[in-house]
Amino acid sequence: MAEDKLTSRSENYSDWYNQVVLRADLADYAPVRGCMVVKPYGWALWENIQRELDRRFKETGHVNAAFPLLIPKSFFEKEKEHVEGFAPELAVVTIGGGEELEEPLIIRPTSETIIGYMYSKWIKSYRDLPVLINQWANVVRWEMRTRLFLRTLEFYWQEGHTAHATAEEAQEETLRMLDVYADFAINEAAVPVIKGRKSETEKFAGAINTYSIEAMMGDTKALQAGTSHYLGQNFAKAFDIKYLDQNNTLQYCWTTSWGLSTRFIGAIIMTHGDDQGLILPPRLAPYQIVIVPIYKNDQERSVVMEYIEKVQSQLKGFRYRLDDRSELTPGFKFNEWELKGVPLRLEIGPKDVEKHAIMAARRDIPGKAGKISLSIENLDLKIENLLNEIQQSLLEKATEFRDQNIHFADSYDELKQIVENGWAEAWWCGSAECEAKIKEETKATTRCMPLDEKIRGKGKCVYCGAEAEKRIYFSKAY
Amino acid sequence: MAEDKLTSRSENYSDWYNQVVLRADLADYAPVRGCMVVKPYGWALWENIQRELDRRFKETGHVNAAFPLLIPKSFFEKEKEHVEGFAPELAVVTIGGGEELEEPLIIRPTSETIIGYMYSKWIKSYRDLPVLINQWANVVRWEMRTRLFLRTLEFYWQEGHTAHATAEEAQEETLRMLDVYADFAINEAAVPVIKGRKSETEKFAGAINTYSIEAMMGDTKALQAGTSHYLGQNFAKAFDIKYLDQNNTLQYCWTTSWGLSTRFIGAIIMTHGDDQGLILPPRLAPYQIVIVPIYKNDQERSVVMEYIEKVQSQLKGFRYRLDDRSELTPGFKFNEWELKGVPLRLEIGPKDVEKHAIMAARRDIPGKAGKISLSIENLDLKIENLLNEIQQSLLEKATEFRDQNIHFADSYDELKQIVENGWAEAWWCGSAECEAKIKEETKATTRCMPLDEKIRGKGKCVYCGAEAEKRIYFSKAY
Repeated sequence: MAEDKLTSRSENYSDWYNQVVLRADLADYAPVRGCMVVKPYGWALWENIQRELDRRFKETGHVNAAFPLLIPKSFFEKEKEHVEGFAPELAVVTIGGGEELEEPLIIRPTSETIIGYMYSKWIKSYRDLPVLINQWANVVRWEMRTRLFLRTLEFYWQEGHTAHATAEEAQEETLRMLDVYADFAINEAAVPVIKGRKSETEKFAGAINTYSIEAMMGDTKALQAGTSHYLGQNFAKAFDIKYLDQNNTLQYCWTTSWGLSTRFIGAIIMTHGDDQGLILPPRLAPYQIVIVPIYKNDQERSVVMEYIEKVQSQLKGFRYRLDDRSELTPGFKFNEWELKGVPLRLEIGPKDVEKHAIMAARRDIPGKAGKISLSIENLDLKIENLLNEIQQSLLEKATEFRDQNIHFADSYDELKQIVENGWAEAWWCGSAECEAKIKEETKATTRCMPLDEKIRGKGKCVYCGAEAEKRIYFSKAY
Repeated sequence: MAEDKLTSRSENYSDWYNQVVLRADLADYAPVRGCMVVKPYGWALWENIQRELDRRFKETGHVNAAFPLLIPKSFFEKEKEHVEGFAPELAVVTIGGGEELEEPLIIRPTSETIIGYMYSKWIKSYRDLPVLINQWANVVRWEMRTRLFLRTLEFYWQEGHTAHATAEEAQEETLRMLDVYADFAINEAAVPVIKGRKSETEKFAGAINTYSIEAMMGDTKALQAGTSHYLGQNFAKAFDIKYLDQNNTLQYCWTTSWGLSTRFIGAIIMTHGDDQGLILPPRLAPYQIVIVPIYKNDQERSVVMEYIEKVQSQLKGFRYRLDDRSELTPGFKFNEWELKGVPLRLEIGPKDVEKHAIMAARRDIPGKAGKISLSIENLDLKIENLLNEIQQSLLEKATEFRDQNIHFADSYDELKQIVENGWAEAWWCGSAECEAKIKEETKATTRCMPLDEKIRGKGKCVYCGAEAEKRIYFSKAY
């Protein structure tokens, strides 16, 4: 596995990414073009992501359900913008049980249509509102250029779909879930995302407004890491989702949807990874700790292993793994677990046993600087502190990197230069034409208009010079 | 919801089942024929099933992963029996991204083929074995006659797929997972399943042996509630899953697969339900407890609600729900939560407040006999005991019912009579012809040959009179 050295990030960032995904055993290519297999190590990471998101969804009053994979084709034609957005990406089932189907079925690329249909059956009165449902699901979008985790034909995600009695409530929900995503990204994944609103061009097909969390990767490109859509009454009207209000009048509902996918694993890899491989944030890492025993002979081995049993009794609260494979050298194991991004390595040899200590090595600080000898007294507390420090330090480092690579562009020339290696923040008149021109000429797309209250005022559009009230980020993106 | 009375089980068992599923809000019909929507209450039950199974899988050394939904059609042709078994049930994607596909893709009906293909890439040496992977997934089988949970086009399940160096190890794994299923069914779901081996006719397409857990429903029909397959080297040869053994010789692996699906929810409904609706086992119930406040006016209400806050402080370890909807009467709520099968209801009115008590009503014992007043001192312990008693009592009742309805058939005439309303245990010569004749004439199929050690010996085949070494259950089945 770790036989050859990884390509370095500076040499070829894209190769580095692919190699890390494959060699760290996160995922593999499936036999169908553009599909992936999420391997056990990658899935364990996704399960931890799911656990932390699901907890937040439930704390904000949501429940889970499961809607069907297969959607009648006609459903997609009911919302005009939605069908335009998704038609080129659909996978179509035309044969079932050996017979041609009367109406082709679409494998869901997203579930607004089928859920809208069900909500129209379920919702009768204001007493039924709000409906706050999430589902964990696989979806299929026929993408042309694919990358493991970042863009695959089938991917895994959660999609929340809510229905409300008023526009205000739906708007609040949209922003609440954006906050939930940002809170998760920052505090669990140590990915310092920026919350903002997407442009008209970049919004979800069928939404009134789309909000996103945007993350900066190690090559300064942007990655949209989660989105929350205010759908207004668009889908309610297309699918007849109505309720009787307190005055016995029929009203259309106001709906939202929001999603975060296995793409987020790509964000974690490219936010924290270094030339040795993955660096996983302790709060999400499948293994927070790996123990590597060090010995020269059987006698040393038995002393060390006995001591490790005692150490393990203090690790019950952590996700840890003892790497006791006898056919491999400690050096090989160090490389492998570095590649796999385990936050903390405990090295334990005869000298550590003598000293009633262990040697802890931080993944985020390479070499000697990241090593510290800990006596085993209250080891659990010391390790908890170390893991918290690593988590905190990953967030700080990523935030610093992000802030160093966002620059305000006063002119279009400046913008062109900035987006070569960073994000440009700039005034923008709001026209899709300026946006398209900038994209065409620089390959940078609009990421989002930051929600930060501080950013108010007026300026001149960085492209056309017209009066502008919006500030927006431009950058190359995944 | 609870406006009309449920059809009783004796009146029409099938109608009773459908009504319970729909009215208890477990599931709904999807717009595509044969597909279902699992509603939040049903999904919460499934999540509890998942949690208890997943825990057992991990305790027995398994890890989770995710393999693709879409499988090249050619994969199905590599294992002869497998393709014969599944060909009539396939859903086929022929169009992707607006273009006809060169090779049609199958939506997985089960994943032996795609996982076999990946294992052949991953497994090189005896050091890589065993591979013990499970996935939680949706699958699609184009069924003609469908029933919510029992048989749907799309369903949810877990499928374990393991590869081993020896036949013995694979056989052990097959039976270990059968034991895991039985342990789960009996101790979590209070469904007293019988473990056994399927006949050649009833085994999985491509398996050497299939084992199942079989449950008896409230109408005495059988339901196959989980299966574990010993696949021998069939799939290893079809997909070239080979390893270098310790003598550096290439060997084919020995594989297994095992699955349990949302069908199990049907088993829970039909094992425990009564004419009032669902009865859920406390260990799996989404809500173990519902609290219904009782009051006549605002003053009483505030006294009762304040008291309930104190009660709730003792319920932290339970899954409970306070039903404080003010527009509904307690009687309405009682009916609704009975229909939904919540194991324990706590009724709390002004008199209970005075007595420093609550009134607990057991769902499994209707009327006054199931009511008991509990002082709130150590209420948590009392409730824990009550829930354990309910769990135990559900299992005992179901076991008694099962045993009362299994009879030994000495003759074919007896068998015919028994399977009208129960399971017949009988000697069977092992021929598919006898099995087919019995099925044709009585509608009873072979369920399984019990693994119970006690059952050994010889007899005469209940159909043809030939010498028989196998005892097997015959019954009508879902």
